[in-house]
Amino acid sequence: MKSYRKELWFHIPTRRGFVNITPQVKECLCESGIREGLCLVNAMNITASVFINDDESGLLADFERWLEELAPFEPTSRYRHNNTGENNADAHLKRTLMGREAVVAVTDGKLDFGTWEQIFYGEFDGRRRKHVLVKIIGE
Amino acid sequence: MKSYRKELWFHIPTRRGFVNITPQVKECLCESGIREGLCLVNAMNITASVFINDDESGLLADFERWLEELAPFEPTSRYRHNNTGENNADAHLKRTLMGREAVVAVTDGKLDFGTWEQIFYGEFDGRRRKHVLVKIIGE
Amino acid sequence: MKSYRKELWFHIPTRRGFVNITPQVKECLCESGIREGLCLVNAMNITASVFINDDESGLLADFERWLEELAPFEPTSRYRHNNTGENNADAHLKRTLMGREAVVAVTDGKLDFGTWEQIFYGEFDGRRRKHVLVKIIGE
Repeated sequence: MKSYRKELWFHIPTRRGFVNITPQVKECLCESGIREGLCLVNAMNITASVFINDDESGLLADFERWLEELAPFEPTSRYRHNNTGENNADAHLKRTLMGREAVVAVTDGKLDFGTWEQIFYGEFDGRRRKHVLVKIIGE
Repeated sequence: MKSYRKELWFHIPTRRGFVNITPQVKECLCESGIREGLCLVNAMNITASVFINDDESGLLADFERWLEELAPFEPTSRYRHNNTGENNADAHLKRTLMGREAVVAVTDGKLDFGTWEQIFYGEFDGRRRKHVLVKIIGE
Repeated sequence: MKSYRKELWFHIPTRRGFVNITPQVKECLCESGIREGLCLVNAMNITASVFINDDESGLLADFERWLEELAPFEPTSRYRHNNTGENNADAHLKRTLMGREAVVAVTDGKLDFGTWEQIFYGEFDGRRRKHVLVKIIGE
């Protein structure tokens, strides 16, 4: 069994944002030399997500608005977590809705994806360096 | 290490629906000959889900109503994604709530499940052929 | 390839609660002797979750309140599942929001975590014994 590990780093200049990281994950898979196995991609920060969806700008805007409805940033006083001096409680909830991780099959040296599947990094408390783990096992 | 891959195809005649796919996944596991490992089951379409819950018809009806409350189909104009000519933005959100994938342990040649765990395909934009990937690795 | 399996049992005295199970999962990893691979941790009951977030008491209280807003316990008559004699339909929905499982990379014999990542068991229908599966594969 082979294994491969890499951290991807992001610094999103705004509080929230989405980045299509499929190219970076493909590069990792290529570097790994693994042909058959599983690829885990997970946010290492708890106010960020990794998820799989469509790379369509309207949809990403819909996600942004919808997350704000289900887990609003304000009033920040509504969250007990924000009593710690943070103002990012909503980011923990948004990340929960979008998910921490994606597990992707590796087949014949490629990410085994449907036509429209793309891997995204979802940032909900940006303006600082944060990281994503890519771990691939197989052979 | 062994690996196994199969696509399962579905054509749900309605916009939304749930299908218990546990029997098909068990058949895949049997075909694979794998006794110890991990089994990934994921939707290959981004408006569908794979999730694990109870096969109880009342609960599935509750899921349907609840998803419609949290991510309503209408008004379709509320979603920017629908400006592309699609009317399935809600399906992308519903799939996000229910999840893209399930990872199931394989132990002694069986899906290592609790008593009530069943794997479902969740369709949120049906009336066309869509597919699910089963990937099993182990030995 | 090595594989390891263990069930962790919980009996939460209240209907809902969160338990940081990171120490137990670390112990499993140590017992397994696996240095490189993947660790799956999943609820075996369908009214409970395994998820990764921050161990901060205010945040856990925020999760509790937020889940009650998005998937309220009452009125219990609002859920068809509760016609079966159960009153835990909300627990199935809450578990869906929080997730069934976490997949964690194993690197150099350790859970490959960011600084604040902690694994939680989320109970939404407690006052009875329930279990979590830890399955580790690798070498």
